[in-house]
Amino acid sequence: MKEINNGGITSPQGFKAAGIAAGIKQSGKKDLTLIYTESPAYFAGAFTTNKLCASSVNYCKRILENSETIHAIVVNSGNANACTGNQGLIDTESMASEAAKYLKINQSQVMVSSTGVIGAPLPIDKIVHGIKLAVDSLSSTGGHDAARAIMTTDTAPKAMAVSIDVAGYPVTIGGIAKGAGMIAPKLKTAQPHATMLAYMTTDAVIEPDCLRQCLENSLLSSFNKITVDGDTSTNDTVIAMANAAAKNPVIKIGSAEAESFSNAFNYVAKDLAKKIVLDGEGASKFVNVTVKRAKSESQARQCAFAIANSLLCKTAWFGADPNWGRILDVIGYSDIEIDPNNISVFYDDLAIVEKSQGTSTPVANQINVLQQNEFNVTVDVGVGTGEFSAWTCDLSYEYVKINAEYHT
Amino acid sequence: MKEINNGGITSPQGFKAAGIAAGIKQSGKKDLTLIYTESPAYFAGAFTTNKLCASSVNYCKRILENSETIHAIVVNSGNANACTGNQGLIDTESMASEAAKYLKINQSQVMVSSTGVIGAPLPIDKIVHGIKLAVDSLSSTGGHDAARAIMTTDTAPKAMAVSIDVAGYPVTIGGIAKGAGMIAPKLKTAQPHATMLAYMTTDAVIEPDCLRQCLENSLLSSFNKITVDGDTSTNDTVIAMANAAAKNPVIKIGSAEAESFSNAFNYVAKDLAKKIVLDGEGASKFVNVTVKRAKSESQARQCAFAIANSLLCKTAWFGADPNWGRILDVIGYSDIEIDPNNISVFYDDLAIVEKSQGTSTPVANQINVLQQNEFNVTVDVGVGTGEFSAWTCDLSYEYVKINAEYHT
Repeated sequence: MKEINNGGITSPQGFKAAGIAAGIKQSGKKDLTLIYTESPAYFAGAFTTNKLCASSVNYCKRILENSETIHAIVVNSGNANACTGNQGLIDTESMASEAAKYLKINQSQVMVSSTGVIGAPLPIDKIVHGIKLAVDSLSSTGGHDAARAIMTTDTAPKAMAVSIDVAGYPVTIGGIAKGAGMIAPKLKTAQPHATMLAYMTTDAVIEPDCLRQCLENSLLSSFNKITVDGDTSTNDTVIAMANAAAKNPVIKIGSAEAESFSNAFNYVAKDLAKKIVLDGEGASKFVNVTVKRAKSESQARQCAFAIANSLLCKTAWFGADPNWGRILDVIGYSDIEIDPNNISVFYDDLAIVEKSQGTSTPVANQINVLQQNEFNVTVDVGVGTGEFSAWTCDLSYEYVKINAEYHT
Repeated sequence: MKEINNGGITSPQGFKAAGIAAGIKQSGKKDLTLIYTESPAYFAGAFTTNKLCASSVNYCKRILENSETIHAIVVNSGNANACTGNQGLIDTESMASEAAKYLKINQSQVMVSSTGVIGAPLPIDKIVHGIKLAVDSLSSTGGHDAARAIMTTDTAPKAMAVSIDVAGYPVTIGGIAKGAGMIAPKLKTAQPHATMLAYMTTDAVIEPDCLRQCLENSLLSSFNKITVDGDTSTNDTVIAMANAAAKNPVIKIGSAEAESFSNAFNYVAKDLAKKIVLDGEGASKFVNVTVKRAKSESQARQCAFAIANSLLCKTAWFGADPNWGRILDVIGYSDIEIDPNNISVFYDDLAIVEKSQGTSTPVANQINVLQQNEFNVTVDVGVGTGEFSAWTCDLSYEYVKINAEYHT
């Protein structure tokens, strides 16, 4: 597997994309993305589990149930089209039908996503006009414009691609994603969930079930392991498309090729997920929180997310304060089984807590770890074999600024 | 019932208190409180459910199981004596035995609390010396010094008292409390939880079971309905003492007097709980979040706390941003039963959301509500009769400052 320099969703063969300014954002920045595959593509999706999910999420789930292949995805940023009632549904349908009309494809082959403010009506006239512009701008080098036009409070576009060899054929997997707040995805395939949005493209020839399995298997080690603020969005969406342009022998479930494809797919998904956390609203530090020796993976996950979402831990990390008492406090209330006398905590490789008490590791060394842009907090709760890592960021003044002053 | 001007734990007859500086806090501020009743008092307690609770919590639970009455409570601030292993237990015992020695009472009649940094050894020599000082300073007007000496990041002491008439006898109930961070108590009687600390005194003659019932019944409408940061402390403690000095006819479970006593007890507990939130770390606003028409009270509670702890809601309140989409987002992920098309939201009496969509209430009017120091956010999820109110505060730059720069 090799990473493609400056890669993205148009790195795989047969994909085109565009990102244009439709006028949804008052800033005039790009706010409409179109992703297009020349041949119809098998696809898989995962969407938010939020019960008040956006109309685009309900729309995509319907397409997922009824269509065998898709041809395009249209995405607007600047407006989530959530909690917008019947008009929201009509507007989502319009986005799909307009894209279909200009692309000369069937509406049932168009997926739709929205991200931005919840509860405001979509400026559908601007979007319809923008869709025509985007169709005219489609290009096999348009991946980076596409990555830019899905951004909201993101400070940078997020994209990457890798290529692998499948039975002598080069196969490419690319992706784009956006964060940066309301990030605590709990995506489910068929009925997935984040407002992270992520789109992945591949030119692989692959069985649709195998593609679905790759997406499903990747979630817990990528998009479903991240949190910025613990708020799970109404619009989280991940869509993967495979258009078979690489002409490789078909990748089948259970084969060696499937494993190697799956590894590459995971690699791209994890990279995009990590980029979302690195660019979390106001984030200055990336923290990998691992809980080990829990009773089960699910208990490890519960505790890891409790630490990853704790305001006291997140502010301590921002201040490079080695105050491990806050971590033990969270372990204690996270409602998982623990051995109260046998908790260990590590900052990177430094042992900070052993047998539930502080070690003699000099505070200056602890602070050195926490002053890095990236570090690991590892917790051993001493009762089993369950393990899980959550990815989070610190909580800074800038987070408060973005979310107190980003009026709507 | 009438409130006592400038009341506190020494307002009831027969109670003395002191608050002195023992040198635990580097600032030199008061950090040791002693509460004493001349006659032995029936008592009830509620403590944190955190599995890594402090040694003082385990100690108090033991006293609660084994002693019929108590005579004193000794409390230090500046150090939580949590995650301090066997030495922590020994130090807690020393605090009790030293207080007993100078007060000439049995150690089994002394309760102990600690609050402050987790994981640091207690400076027991300073505390032992401080206990002697405190015993010498005990006074029937010492309630306010006591309220001050339990403070950590609190900006003001919290105290109050009321008096009621019980069969012609004046009966007084007083209390003190402290916050201000790591506040999301989940207290249980017999095995309670927060680091909020609260101590309540009364001179009532009351059956011990009736006192316990009063405490138990008050929790869900006082200390267990508050959150500042969602972090449940290792040290949360509430202790109530009744010393019978008022000589009223004994208050028995199920009587009219019990009801009137219980109402007054609740009134004091709620007042103290509210003061904790008003003085939450960095808080500039008090928000009463009510969830109505949920399937059950427990589902209403789950959703109310999800909103009350949401970073996006708390920062929006700080910025007086009427962005109700963030509230609907939380309702959607709070994992309770809802009618997705029939959610209503009110800011005070203003209807902001009806049938899950924004109303035409002018944004300027919405902002007016959110600019107040106190306001109500009321949510109707449209499926049942369950209702719960959580009390929370906004999330400000100052919260980040306190918790990123309050190094330890």
